[in-house]
Amino acid sequence: MIGIDWGTTSLRAYRLGPEGAVTDRLDRAGGILTVAEGGFPAALREAVGRWLADGEKRVLLCGMVGSRQGWVEAPYLRCPAGPAEIAAATVPVPFEGAEVRLVPGLTTEDRDGIPDVMRGEETKLVALANRLDDAQACLPGTHSKWARLEADRVVHFTTHMTGEAFAALSQHTILARTSTEGPHRPEAFARGVARARQPGGLLHHLFGARTLHLMDRLEQTETRSFLSGLLIGHEIAAAAAETGATQVELVGAETLADLYAEALRLSGITVRRHEPDLVAAGLHHIGGSLGWA
Amino acid sequence: MIGIDWGTTSLRAYRLGPEGAVTDRLDRAGGILTVAEGGFPAALREAVGRWLADGEKRVLLCGMVGSRQGWVEAPYLRCPAGPAEIAAATVPVPFEGAEVRLVPGLTTEDRDGIPDVMRGEETKLVALANRLDDAQACLPGTHSKWARLEADRVVHFTTHMTGEAFAALSQHTILARTSTEGPHRPEAFARGVARARQPGGLLHHLFGARTLHLMDRLEQTETRSFLSGLLIGHEIAAAAAETGATQVELVGAETLADLYAEALRLSGITVRRHEPDLVAAGLHHIGGSLGWA
Repeated sequence: MIGIDWGTTSLRAYRLGPEGAVTDRLDRAGGILTVAEGGFPAALREAVGRWLADGEKRVLLCGMVGSRQGWVEAPYLRCPAGPAEIAAATVPVPFEGAEVRLVPGLTTEDRDGIPDVMRGEETKLVALANRLDDAQACLPGTHSKWARLEADRVVHFTTHMTGEAFAALSQHTILARTSTEGPHRPEAFARGVARARQPGGLLHHLFGARTLHLMDRLEQTETRSFLSGLLIGHEIAAAAAETGATQVELVGAETLADLYAEALRLSGITVRRHEPDLVAAGLHHIGGSLGWA
Repeated sequence: MIGIDWGTTSLRAYRLGPEGAVTDRLDRAGGILTVAEGGFPAALREAVGRWLADGEKRVLLCGMVGSRQGWVEAPYLRCPAGPAEIAAATVPVPFEGAEVRLVPGLTTEDRDGIPDVMRGEETKLVALANRLDDAQACLPGTHSKWARLEADRVVHFTTHMTGEAFAALSQHTILARTSTEGPHRPEAFARGVARARQPGGLLHHLFGARTLHLMDRLEQTETRSFLSGLLIGHEIAAAAAETGATQVELVGAETLADLYAEALRLSGITVRRHEPDLVAAGLHHIGGSLGWA
C-alpha cells in the first residue's frame, strides 16, 4: 500500500511493505494549497504514479487533504477512536486504477462542552498508541496537541495555540521592539518557564518581558527565549493541571521538541522522546484495519 | 498652573484655576513621537505659549514625555507613592520664563520579584485615590492597569497586556481568517468571558474560537467579540484571584470601559464607573504638593 501525509504546505509519501517497512519515500513541497480545484487526482498520480505503475493498488491519505480545503472533507470522527474506528470512517474518493481513501480527523469535547479538533496528528497517535500502554502524548507545534491514549485509542485531547501565539506576540506587540533574533538562550528560557508557574496570569506575565528589559534584567537577545519559555510553560502548566500527567510521551522534530523536553523537565514531568516521523507506521496500522496490510 | 498629559501620540493641556477648575484646555495630535531631539521647549511653547504670555509660570507634565523617548527621563518611583512622594520625585527641566517639571512613572514588584511599571496612569490614580478610601482600580487599555489604592497612595499594581494581545491574536493568527469586523456581539462576548473562568488555560481557550466556528457554533461576525470576552475575562480572573477584589473602580473611555464593566459584572464583581478624564485633577493634586496650587 501507499501512505501519504498531505498537508497544507507539503506532501510526504511512503511505499509500505507488508510489515509496514518503508520501501520507498518521497517528500515534496506540493501541499494542498498548490492544488487547483478538481486537481487532486492528477496531483496524486503525478506524485506516486511510478509506484502505481509498479503494482500498488491502495492509497491511504491523511492530513489537510481531508479538510474542507482539500480533496473532499473527511468529517471529524468522535473520540475515543483507534485504528478500527478510524479505518471504518475513512472516506473513499474516485481514482482510476487504485482504491484511494482519506483518513478523518478526530474531534472531542472538554467537560465544558467546547469542541476540539485534530487532523493529521491522529495518524501519528495511532502509531504511538500501538507501541505503548496507557499514555499521555504531547505533540508540540503551531497548534500543540496533548492526547490521552488508552488501549490503542485516542480517548481525549486538547489543542494549545502556543506556536501561533508566540509568533503573533513576539512579532506584533511592543515586545518586538526590545527583542532581537539570535541563538537560543537557555537561562532566559528557563526563567520564562519558571515565571509561567507563578500567579498573575499569562497576560500579566507577557508584560513582564517588557519590564524586565526596562529594568536591565533581561537582554534584548534574551527576550524571545524568555517569551518562548513563558508560553510553553503556560501550556504545560495548564495541560498538566488538566491531565495530572507526571510522564509525557513527546513526539516532534528536534529543535521544538528539545525546548518542550527541557520545559517539561523543569516542570517536574518525566519525558520520553519519540521520533517525529510516526506517520508511515500510523498509516500502516489503519491500513491493517482496512485489510490492506 | 498648567497641567499637561503628553503621551506618545497626543498632547492634552489644562489651564488650572486655584481650586483645580479647568479654565481652558487644548487637545492636539502632537505626541512626543512628533518632537525632534531637543525640540521639547519649542514644542511646549508652541502649545501653551498663549497661557504663559497670560501669566502662567508653572507647568507640570505627565505621561511618556518623562520616558527615555521623551524630554528627559523621570525615573520610575517605587510604590507606595501618593501626591507627596510623586511631587518630591518630579524632575525639573530648563525652560525660559516658567518652572517646568516632569511627573515620574511608578514601579512596583510582585511577590516573585518581577517588576512592573506605569507612566501617565499614576496621575489619574492620584486623583482617584483623593476621592476614595481604600480601593481597587482598573484602567483598561492596551496595557490594562490594576492598582491598589490605600490612604491617598498607590500601594501596588499589575499590568495586563490585554489590548495588545487582542490586536496581535485577532489579526495575526488563524483566527483572523474566520472573523469579520462588525458590531459588538454581546452574547458572544459573554460566552468568551464565561469560557475564561473554565479550566484549560488561555492558549487552549484561544483555539476554541476556531473550533467553535468549525462546528458552526460561533459565527464569523461573533469571533472578535468572543475573543475580546475571552481575553478580558482572563485578565479579570487573574486580577481578581490576585487582589481578592469584589468591587472595582473602573476608569476609562466609553466603549472599552463598557466592555470591562460588563465582563466584571459577569464575573460577579461590583463596578463603579469614573470619568476617564482624571488627569487634570491628578496634576492639580501633585501641583498642590509642590506648593503650586
